[in-house]
Amino acid sequence: MAPPQLLVFDVFGTVVDWHGSIAAEMARLYPQVDSNAFALAWRAGYKPTMARVMSGELGWTRIDDLHRMILDDILPGFGLSNMPENERRSLNRVWHRLHPWPDVVAGLARLKRQHLISTLSNGNIGLLTHMAKHAGLPWDCVLSAEVFRAYKPDARVYLGAADLFDLQPGQVMLVAAHQDDLAAARASGLQTAYIERPFEFGAQQPKDVSPHPDNTLHARDFGHLADQLDAHRLA
Amino acid sequence: MAPPQLLVFDVFGTVVDWHGSIAAEMARLYPQVDSNAFALAWRAGYKPTMARVMSGELGWTRIDDLHRMILDDILPGFGLSNMPENERRSLNRVWHRLHPWPDVVAGLARLKRQHLISTLSNGNIGLLTHMAKHAGLPWDCVLSAEVFRAYKPDARVYLGAADLFDLQPGQVMLVAAHQDDLAAARASGLQTAYIERPFEFGAQQPKDVSPHPDNTLHARDFGHLADQLDAHRLA
Repeated sequence: MAPPQLLVFDVFGTVVDWHGSIAAEMARLYPQVDSNAFALAWRAGYKPTMARVMSGELGWTRIDDLHRMILDDILPGFGLSNMPENERRSLNRVWHRLHPWPDVVAGLARLKRQHLISTLSNGNIGLLTHMAKHAGLPWDCVLSAEVFRAYKPDARVYLGAADLFDLQPGQVMLVAAHQDDLAAARASGLQTAYIERPFEFGAQQPKDVSPHPDNTLHARDFGHLADQLDAHRLA
Repeated sequence: MAPPQLLVFDVFGTVVDWHGSIAAEMARLYPQVDSNAFALAWRAGYKPTMARVMSGELGWTRIDDLHRMILDDILPGFGLSNMPENERRSLNRVWHRLHPWPDVVAGLARLKRQHLISTLSNGNIGLLTHMAKHAGLPWDCVLSAEVFRAYKPDARVYLGAADLFDLQPGQVMLVAAHQDDLAAARASGLQTAYIERPFEFGAQQPKDVSPHPDNTLHARDFGHLADQLDAHRLA
């Protein structure tokens, strides 16, 4: 394993706990709603809506706007059809305020000492920047699908990140909690590190976090990833 | 004056001392060369070379590559035609290692408490990210002409920065040591803050830093800018 020069991070689910953050905000603001089901429904609209952009059915659209389209779609099913515009706008910004997993801030600080660290998310630049400020995420750079006008798993996103830093794909490592994202990055020649986030979909819906042999590394959390990268570097 | 939500910073000359950094590196590595003249010659190639990109004569080209083209052009005039490829590559990366002016790191830390702070430079993302890491610049976001595929003073750069954050142009302030950059930003509706960098071109070539009445603010340095923004916010 050649040491990666640049670590790029998936964000939703890998860095931040979207399910827990959205469910907590819903429980606080709209206690009559099933907050677990609401968080899952909002996120479930994500991939199909991005697919409408990538198919050309919709023009290029920011995730902030896709989140809002999905929100408007799901509100009636939760008895919230009458939510006023200002509340919809404010609620949609919950994606800017998602909480990091407990290991993330300290783990990124460690990883940053030896590597360039950047987001590589389908979230838009404004969203990712607000999130970083809110959560104290010490990115060296905020890279987004928005820069490449293509959503992951499109190869342009992975290859574009390497190209911006004048690196070969094999000098870049994608860090993610999703095997499909990692598989697409590997197909473009990136190294990959899987992070276990067993409760990404909430405590009631634990997900399979078993290792995939094709990943370069498999880590319980960002601290464990830093341990492994340190061990390789010092070996 | 409405308080700006986002401060975007010109970088070369405003945040970092390109003249002093390049002259120091040249004096160390090639003491036989007039390091002041060398720094000025390298920088003088910058605007004409960007103009070749914006006119369409050259396709989209990163500043790293423009810096290299200019370097190759000027080396013979300084008796360095025989500089080997690896030295040229290393020297070209001096732009990634430019030193900040003395007020910058503490000033940005203050400004970051109340504002989103981002680069808005013609430098490419890789260059700006390496520079930030090297110099300890605590950007919330690294924005570059590279994102918009246009160089300042093209309006797409100023308007593009506002748009990425879903802001009106008047909610964004450009901070720069160059009146032409600020004038173009004002023409797009941004607020502007001029920063005095009298020795941008070296101690031997002090530049005029007198106030222009159309700028929103005029500051000696980043600390003085933070003082003025604090005063407006608390007024």
